[in-house]
Amino acid sequence: MPVTDLHGLFLHELRDLYSAESQIIKALPKMITAASDSKLKEALTEHLLVTKKQLARLDTIGEEFDFKISGHECQGIKGIITEAEETLKEIKDAATKDAAIIVSAQRVEHYEMAAYGGAVAFAKEMDHAEAAGLLETTLKEEGDADKALSGLAQGGMFSEGLNQTAIKD
Amino acid sequence: MPVTDLHGLFLHELRDLYSAESQIIKALPKMITAASDSKLKEALTEHLLVTKKQLARLDTIGEEFDFKISGHECQGIKGIITEAEETLKEIKDAATKDAAIIVSAQRVEHYEMAAYGGAVAFAKEMDHAEAAGLLETTLKEEGDADKALSGLAQGGMFSEGLNQTAIKD
Repeated sequence: MPVTDLHGLFLHELRDLYSAESQIIKALPKMITAASDSKLKEALTEHLLVTKKQLARLDTIGEEFDFKISGHECQGIKGIITEAEETLKEIKDAATKDAAIIVSAQRVEHYEMAAYGGAVAFAKEMDHAEAAGLLETTLKEEGDADKALSGLAQGGMFSEGLNQTAIKD
Repeated sequence: MPVTDLHGLFLHELRDLYSAESQIIKALPKMITAASDSKLKEALTEHLLVTKKQLARLDTIGEEFDFKISGHECQGIKGIITEAEETLKEIKDAATKDAAIIVSAQRVEHYEMAAYGGAVAFAKEMDHAEAAGLLETTLKEEGDADKALSGLAQGGMFSEGLNQTAIKD
């Protein structure tokens, strides 16, 4: 679909995010199965629930602007998920696999932070207050998910030091 | 190449980043040509120079650890660049194209922030102080580039409001 103005680009970005969230919902259960650390499994499981709510928010925005939000394929998230799955195939030991899941999931979160950040800026620029509010809620959740993953990786309060475990193996 | 421990995953991440930077060096000139706003062209041109230095830092780390850093293909950045190029093809007007370039470039920066963030954490975990220092320098540059792009998009001191221009078209 040709994009002729900022509103068209905004809708394009929403379609991209809708596809991204849909792909993440399909990929997360595989990551949860591949993870060993109970806190990591828990964080990913919690994020799967949050992601489903984020998809529902995009549906709400799609209805507000009366356009078909599905049908586009987000190439960015597709590449990031392909990469994550290929990396995991190369790893045998559990602790290193957990470390790889964390850095892969952080790539996903950062992609979404960039994309939602842009969508929020576009929504505000065009005074779409309701859409901006919904998108900002998701943007904050993606930032929180990224910080929680950093906490797990760096041996903070959510972790007993996943990376140290990998070194010891 | 199978990854058997955190050190192996660290080398895998460095290979991924080496490919990412190489792909970005090839893609940026096309983005510079596609951009219209002079400040955006300038920011991308400056970032191309910075990216070449970042690639050289990865070469230095590759020499330190005596492994072949080239030869891997980063699927994440490949997807993000493909997406950026496909999006630009759908847009005719200059101001909307500039807005799309900004949000695409921010996806690239965020991918790198996540990947360098992970690599820094791994390097520190294994007490590779020199590598950690080099990677942290790049991580900071990626964050700065992302902020500069936000400044351009939101009509800050580097911009006269690119998004407003798109609305007016």
